[in-house]
Amino acid sequence: MTETVAAIVAAHRAGQQSPAQTVARSFKRIREHNDPAIFISLRDEKDAVTEAEALSAKDARELPLLGVPVAVKDNIDVAGLPTTAACPAYSYNPTRDAASVARLRQAGAIIIGKTNLDQFATGLVGVRSPYGIPVNPMRSDLIPGGSSSGSAVAVSTGLVPLSLGTDTAGSGRVPAMLNNIVGLKPSLGLVPTAGVVPACRTLDCVSVFSLTVDDAVAALSVMAGPDRSDPFSRDRSFAKLSPFPGGLRLGVPRDGQLIFFGDKAQEAAYAAALERWRALGATLVSFDLEPLYETARLLYEGPWVTERYLVIRNLLASSPDAIHPVTREITIAGSRISAADTFAALYRLQTLRRTAEHAFAGIDALVLPTAPTAYSTAQVLANPIELNSRLGTYTNFVNLLDLCGLALPSSIRPDEIPFGITLLAPAGQDALLASIGRVFQAQTKLTLGAKGVVLPPLADLSLDLTGDEIPIAVVGAHLSGMALNAELKAHGGRLLEATSTAPDYRLFALPTTPPKPGMLRVEAGSGTPVALEVWALRAAEFARFVAAIPPPLSIGTVRLKDGRGVKGFIVEAADVGNAKDISSYGGWRAFTTQAAK
Amino acid sequence: MTETVAAIVAAHRAGQQSPAQTVARSFKRIREHNDPAIFISLRDEKDAVTEAEALSAKDARELPLLGVPVAVKDNIDVAGLPTTAACPAYSYNPTRDAASVARLRQAGAIIIGKTNLDQFATGLVGVRSPYGIPVNPMRSDLIPGGSSSGSAVAVSTGLVPLSLGTDTAGSGRVPAMLNNIVGLKPSLGLVPTAGVVPACRTLDCVSVFSLTVDDAVAALSVMAGPDRSDPFSRDRSFAKLSPFPGGLRLGVPRDGQLIFFGDKAQEAAYAAALERWRALGATLVSFDLEPLYETARLLYEGPWVTERYLVIRNLLASSPDAIHPVTREITIAGSRISAADTFAALYRLQTLRRTAEHAFAGIDALVLPTAPTAYSTAQVLANPIELNSRLGTYTNFVNLLDLCGLALPSSIRPDEIPFGITLLAPAGQDALLASIGRVFQAQTKLTLGAKGVVLPPLADLSLDLTGDEIPIAVVGAHLSGMALNAELKAHGGRLLEATSTAPDYRLFALPTTPPKPGMLRVEAGSGTPVALEVWALRAAEFARFVAAIPPPLSIGTVRLKDGRGVKGFIVEAADVGNAKDISSYGGWRAFTTQAAK
Repeated sequence: MTETVAAIVAAHRAGQQSPAQTVARSFKRIREHNDPAIFISLRDEKDAVTEAEALSAKDARELPLLGVPVAVKDNIDVAGLPTTAACPAYSYNPTRDAASVARLRQAGAIIIGKTNLDQFATGLVGVRSPYGIPVNPMRSDLIPGGSSSGSAVAVSTGLVPLSLGTDTAGSGRVPAMLNNIVGLKPSLGLVPTAGVVPACRTLDCVSVFSLTVDDAVAALSVMAGPDRSDPFSRDRSFAKLSPFPGGLRLGVPRDGQLIFFGDKAQEAAYAAALERWRALGATLVSFDLEPLYETARLLYEGPWVTERYLVIRNLLASSPDAIHPVTREITIAGSRISAADTFAALYRLQTLRRTAEHAFAGIDALVLPTAPTAYSTAQVLANPIELNSRLGTYTNFVNLLDLCGLALPSSIRPDEIPFGITLLAPAGQDALLASIGRVFQAQTKLTLGAKGVVLPPLADLSLDLTGDEIPIAVVGAHLSGMALNAELKAHGGRLLEATSTAPDYRLFALPTTPPKPGMLRVEAGSGTPVALEVWALRAAEFARFVAAIPPPLSIGTVRLKDGRGVKGFIVEAADVGNAKDISSYGGWRAFTTQAAK
Repeated sequence: MTETVAAIVAAHRAGQQSPAQTVARSFKRIREHNDPAIFISLRDEKDAVTEAEALSAKDARELPLLGVPVAVKDNIDVAGLPTTAACPAYSYNPTRDAASVARLRQAGAIIIGKTNLDQFATGLVGVRSPYGIPVNPMRSDLIPGGSSSGSAVAVSTGLVPLSLGTDTAGSGRVPAMLNNIVGLKPSLGLVPTAGVVPACRTLDCVSVFSLTVDDAVAALSVMAGPDRSDPFSRDRSFAKLSPFPGGLRLGVPRDGQLIFFGDKAQEAAYAAALERWRALGATLVSFDLEPLYETARLLYEGPWVTERYLVIRNLLASSPDAIHPVTREITIAGSRISAADTFAALYRLQTLRRTAEHAFAGIDALVLPTAPTAYSTAQVLANPIELNSRLGTYTNFVNLLDLCGLALPSSIRPDEIPFGITLLAPAGQDALLASIGRVFQAQTKLTLGAKGVVLPPLADLSLDLTGDEIPIAVVGAHLSGMALNAELKAHGGRLLEATSTAPDYRLFALPTTPPKPGMLRVEAGSGTPVALEVWALRAAEFARFVAAIPPPLSIGTVRLKDGRGVKGFIVEAADVGNAKDISSYGGWRAFTTQAAK
């Protein structure tokens, strides 16, 4: 079955299935699934099929999302369909696609319809909409999660393989967990928000739902990039994926800082997820969540609710009854906040950002439960604000701290509630999260979404270099997990491959601090192969990295076992005279491991 | 006479004058000048002289501000002196130096006293202080300018060669013009603001007053850099100066956008300044000021005044009469602004920032009058708010747009009012502004400050690297005039110096095409000095150059005859076995010349 974006594009390219057939299949499934609360509006099927039929042979070769049906949250503009933000009184007819939607279309995607949401994207529950409550396909008594409820359910139920949500405080992550799918929240400004109904303009992101991490990456890759017309767009780029790194350091909350509201099954599921990371070779590092919790409290107790108020100020004045009562109650509070409170909160946030920056410098990513527990629709309707707020425990602080996030299915609890984790890292690390998240997802062996789709084997990564990247071979303290590896990461390096040299080298242990090896080329064939890693650095970073290399190390050309020559570390011969020859270990990692015994 | 920072440090190093003598001279001049409105508090002279006497011989070699007397605006903490912000009721006794002050002291500067200011740094006039109005030494009827009034007058009158101001809306630039001195406003966060009484915390900068651009650079060089304890500090660095660039593009206001409030002499002086830039080879490019003017209006009409209100909220409540009536009237308005107005203004600012970014992409810097006109004290006292506001025409928008600025004396008008220009560029371009500003200042042939100090000849920059340049030593075909020298030029390289290595190398003629030498390091002192050239390449070009170097050559660290280590060409030992040892020639050029005979 062609259920993933990757499989659909491959089938289209191979001619096994036409984009028009795939689009028609989406519409058929929507009719058969027959949950009127998922979509607020659907495109005319004939139009969509015609658009799919118009994709040419040239498109087939070049478009990364060739004929992929996509659902779009109904606070993101799609030309030709109304934008309601789940508030009929607010509805308007956009004449242009949002920038994110336009980029998907340029990449060959076919928009199918607009999905339901918590009104004005305010909520994490999916029950605050006059268009009904999408049924959670994993367990029908559960809330679907929100605010991107319809987009998450549409992917979980296989109506579309890909959908857009938005995420200000967790709206792109909490529903991912509750629907057993992937939710990718990019770094702020990486995907333009032009054409999105704001929730908090300074914090909003367009997010992606899909069955697999690689599918989310495919969408992000085409949507990422600056947009001159969008003042909140930033000049951030989405790097390529790398292999799972050695020495991965993952932050986990300090003892006593985890919150599950008494949900023991959630607690156990999180512990099992951490075990899986350990099995993958990650080191778990204690991380202080308190500054993150304080940031989360700032979000709803602080001035940012005023941003939501600004969006519907006129509507609140003219037709207050047109607004969902819970949304109205929350949003009206934004009218009573002062500039003094606002700046005081901005100052506090600035301090918390710096605290978080320093904390994140010690880890590669933070791994948290996506939400502390799950609630039924009945529970949330009975206690709409408090339970909603609890669901944001691990998501509310993320956008305020300019982190990127990736929500991943982790397990199905014994009570059949899906559990998920979220990876978090400072803005710009989107590719790192995806690179490790895809391996974690493969390891879970879970089926995808609610329809039992089997995860296909992980695709080989493209190790192509981007524009100005330069590969560099490291043989010593810069190897993954070793003393100076952080330097490569600080320079934005990505691991391309682990391999070894031609048998033309000898390796010496130099008397340096920290200890480093020196690799010396000898007569061809008269040395040993030395284990190494090839990393890619952008040109300017490569320059800074090379400029800072101390003697006796230099950057020459290293011959790999397959005959390729890459730039890499070599030592000057004058300095190996008294150093210990450790060539027999075959590499620095083997030497340090065995020497430690 | 030793009036500049550079001259004073040189005299101290040469032993022609002791730091203690220089400090005592400052105190003597302060007594003789006898304007009680310049300093709010003075340090005990004996303490200061004792501190100067304690500077050691080692300090003499290493400290860039050895024994330089410095005055500090009285909203910046100096341990041992009260911080008043020109409001006695607000005064407190700090136990620690502000970060900026601590860094100056670590560099050998001696703090002399705390200077007068417009209360709470609110104003551009220098007349809003209970400590009096410093007399403008250029023309005594003129306002001194503010808010950093005392610091500017102290430098202009030669009481100290260097002082600190602060700058939120022009307080470090307007007084520079009115006192015929240099005012440097760094990029936001480049100099920590920890220990500064805030005006607008999100916009405040510590600024520098001095007689010459190079003196301001000397101070900025030691104050710049991140400070973990300061959440508004940024990881920005101050690059070294570069030679005056060819093809300089300077923005000037579009026709009809200049504002002089009818001051024809100011208009003529600005036109003459532009002529001087043209004579220096700059191209003047029309630049739309309207977005900058709109930003300026946001500052005082928008929510940022609330930041000022937050600073003195308690005092306004408890002792409103303790606050200068004009300051009180301005600041109290900040209590009435809402969060909604604040976010609306932040959104508008975000758009204006992007507009400005794109506009600045087309020029190297913008050149504007520092202020549109000058006013007498009598005029300002009669119309305190409107005239103050006019003075900020060309300064108010700068910090909101995250620009750096450099105010330079340009001419003395026929009516003896000093005229100055300000160079503006996006944050991070501080070094560029200084690099071109120092040449402009030299070209003006003006004497410095109010005391007729003659500008010393510009110091030689030839060995200084620009921001991201990396030096690289070439020993063979890349030498000037040789086969591959064009490669260096194609990469934008510039020659820094011709020198030679330490006697630690041997040089071999490799059997390559074109012929190249290979330089091998041997035991220290057992080789010969090899002639070489050091070139500078920008980081990205360095990377491409290095990435293209074929084996057996590599880039390691080459030790020069004076002990410095620079990146440069070395050869792998495995490849010199059969190559001819040409060390006795002392270099590749000598070998090729003599071998050709």
